[in-house]
Amino acid sequence: MSGENEVLGKLRAAMKAQGCDALVAFSPDNVTYTAGFLVPSHATNRFRRTITILAGDTFAAQIVVTVEEKLARERSRFQDIRPYGQFDQNPADLLAAALREAGVADGRIAIELDYMPAKDYLRLTELLPRAQFEECRDLYFTARMTKTDEEVAILRRIGELTDRVVGEVLRATRPGMTELDLGRMTVDLMVGGGSAELKYQIGSGPRSGITNCGTSARKIESGDVLRIEILGNIDNYRSNVTRTAVVGTPTDEQKRIWQTLITARDRCKAMLRPGTRVPDLWDTYARTCREGGVEPTLQFLGHGIGQTIHEEPYITTTRNIVMGPNMTFTMEPLYMIPGRMGFHVEDMYVITPAGFSPITGAITPNDELIQVG
Amino acid sequence: MSGENEVLGKLRAAMKAQGCDALVAFSPDNVTYTAGFLVPSHATNRFRRTITILAGDTFAAQIVVTVEEKLARERSRFQDIRPYGQFDQNPADLLAAALREAGVADGRIAIELDYMPAKDYLRLTELLPRAQFEECRDLYFTARMTKTDEEVAILRRIGELTDRVVGEVLRATRPGMTELDLGRMTVDLMVGGGSAELKYQIGSGPRSGITNCGTSARKIESGDVLRIEILGNIDNYRSNVTRTAVVGTPTDEQKRIWQTLITARDRCKAMLRPGTRVPDLWDTYARTCREGGVEPTLQFLGHGIGQTIHEEPYITTTRNIVMGPNMTFTMEPLYMIPGRMGFHVEDMYVITPAGFSPITGAITPNDELIQVG
Repeated sequence: MSGENEVLGKLRAAMKAQGCDALVAFSPDNVTYTAGFLVPSHATNRFRRTITILAGDTFAAQIVVTVEEKLARERSRFQDIRPYGQFDQNPADLLAAALREAGVADGRIAIELDYMPAKDYLRLTELLPRAQFEECRDLYFTARMTKTDEEVAILRRIGELTDRVVGEVLRATRPGMTELDLGRMTVDLMVGGGSAELKYQIGSGPRSGITNCGTSARKIESGDVLRIEILGNIDNYRSNVTRTAVVGTPTDEQKRIWQTLITARDRCKAMLRPGTRVPDLWDTYARTCREGGVEPTLQFLGHGIGQTIHEEPYITTTRNIVMGPNMTFTMEPLYMIPGRMGFHVEDMYVITPAGFSPITGAITPNDELIQVG
Repeated sequence: MSGENEVLGKLRAAMKAQGCDALVAFSPDNVTYTAGFLVPSHATNRFRRTITILAGDTFAAQIVVTVEEKLARERSRFQDIRPYGQFDQNPADLLAAALREAGVADGRIAIELDYMPAKDYLRLTELLPRAQFEECRDLYFTARMTKTDEEVAILRRIGELTDRVVGEVLRATRPGMTELDLGRMTVDLMVGGGSAELKYQIGSGPRSGITNCGTSARKIESGDVLRIEILGNIDNYRSNVTRTAVVGTPTDEQKRIWQTLITARDRCKAMLRPGTRVPDLWDTYARTCREGGVEPTLQFLGHGIGQTIHEEPYITTTRNIVMGPNMTFTMEPLYMIPGRMGFHVEDMYVITPAGFSPITGAITPNDELIQVG
C-alpha cells in the first residue's frame, strides 16, 4: 500500500500547490496512474468513461461503467467505486454529484481539459455553474515524470525483455523472409516473455525511410536497411526500443550517417545527470548531427516513458525541464531519406543521483549498424 | 476510387440532411472512416490530433501532426493535408482557419462534441464566435452502421481468420497449460494470418466468470470452464469472436445454462432480417434467458462492428434502430456466475436483403459447449 499512498499523496500535494480543491482525471493514462489499475474497456471503448476524483485531504472516488464495476472493486486503489449505466446515465452527472458531495461545487477544479470531451465539460459547467475549471495537464505530467523506484523496476523488466527480443529477431533474420514473418516472431517472443500487449513496426528497404511505416508483406532483400521498433507493455508500463540493421555489409554512406547519429547520441549521454536542461540536450544533438551533414528528421530527440509511450520530458527546445533522479525517457536519433532508407536507434534511460543508468542497450547494442543475414 | 466517393458522398449528404454546413471529426474511428486511412499515432498518442473537415459540396481537408504528414499524403483520401507542429502550434487554430476558408465561420458545424477535447472546443468558440456547434455522433453512427460491400468483405476476412484461430487454440488446449500459453498461440496464429494487431482475453476456472478478465498465468485444470475472446484487426476492420469450452465433460448445470443461452440466441437469429427492430431482439433474448432461469449479465445482446469493436447498432432496449441490409453486428449471449464460472458465445452477422448471413460460427461452432483436453 505504500506505493499507492505515495502516488495519491503526490497528486494531492500537487493539487494544493496549484491552489485547487479537486483533481479530476479522464484519460486512460492519468486515470490508470491515479487508480493503479487500467479499466480494460477504458482503452478500447471511447464511449465508456472512467473518471477519478480527488478532493481535499481524503475524498477519493472513481466512476466506471457498470460492466467494469466488479473488476474495479477488486483492483482499483479507490474504495469508493461509482458505477453508471452506459445507455441510460450520463457520467458527467455522477461527476457533478461527487464534486458537490466533496464540498467543492464552488471551488477550483483541476481537470483534464485537454482530454475530457467537450460534451462532458458543457454538462459539468451547466450543473456546477460556480465552479472554476482549469487544466491539470502539467500537474499530471510533472507528478508522473519522476517515477517511484517500483515504477523504475517495472520499466526495467519490460525494457530488458524488449532489448532481448529485438536481438533475437534480428539474429534470426534472413533474406527472403517478409517483414510480417519478423512481426510474428516479435509478438511470439514478447507475449511469451510476459508483455501483455505490444505494438511494433518493421520497415525494410525503402520502407525503412518512412517514420511510422507499420509492417508489410515486403520480402527482405540483401542490401536492405532494416528498422525494427518494438513497444511493449508489462503492468501498463511501456518500452520503446528501436534497432537499425543492414542485410549484408553497410555502405560507406550508411556507416557515415550512423556514426554521426551515434556520436550525437553519445555526447548527449555524457550530459545525462540531475541538473541538465532538456533543451541543452536537443541543442547538442542537433548541432552534432548537422556537423556530420545530417539534418534531424524529428523535432525531438526523445520522450519520457512510463504508463504512456510518449510523456514528459519531451527532449526538445520547447521544454524548460531540468533532469532529476528517477526521470525515465528515451533518446531516439532518427534520420529518414524518403524513398531510400532510414536510420533510427532508440533506447530507454533513467536519471540517477550521480548520473544515469541505461535501461536498454546492454543486451542488443546498436553502436554500430547491426549486420544480419 | 468509387469506395472513397461513396463514403464521402454519404457523409456530405448526412451533413446536409442535418442542416449543417460542415462536418468535423476528431476520433480515430470517425477520422479513419472519413479519410480511409488510420494515422498511426492517432491511436497511440493522445497529444497528436488528427482532424477531418468536410464543408459544402467540395471542401475537404485533413489536419495531421507534422511527423505523420508524409504518410498522410501517401495514404489519405484527402488531397489537402495540413500539418501542424506538435510543440509550437495549436491544431484548433488550423481547424478554425480551415472552416473560415471554407466559408462556414458563421455556419452550423456538426462536430464530435462527445470526443473533441474541451480545450479545443473552448479555443474554437473563441476564434469562431458566430459559428454554431452541434453533435455529429448519430450522423457518423448512422453512416457507418450500413457497410459498403467492400467493408463487409474485409469483415469476413478478419471474422473467418478469428473463427479459425479460436478453434485451433481450443483443439491444442490441454490441462496444465496456462492461459498465457493459449494467449501466445492466439497471437501467433492471428498475426500469422494477417491480423495486424489484436486483443484477446482468456479466462479459465473461476476467472471465466469475470467479464473482462484479461489473461493470466493460471494453469488450466480438468473441470474448468474456459472462455476465449479474440478481437482481431485487418485494415482497421475488427472481429470479435468468443467461445466457451469445458475441460473434460460438462456438468448438467453447465449444459442447462448453455442450452438456455443458445436457445435465446437462435430465437434472435430467426428474427434477423431487414425491418426487425433492435429492441425486439433484446426482448426476445432476455425473455428466453429468464424462462430458462438465466438473468442476462449484460444490458445488451450485441453491438455493431466495423472500424470499432463497439458501434451501432447496440442491441438494447435503448436503441430505436431498424435492421437493414449490410448492417454488421455481433450477438453475444453472456452469463457470469462470479467466483465460479462464466458462459459467453459471440459471433458476427450481416443483414442481407432476404435475411442474414453469419460472418463467423461456421468454422468453430459453439452450439454445444466445446469439450477440450
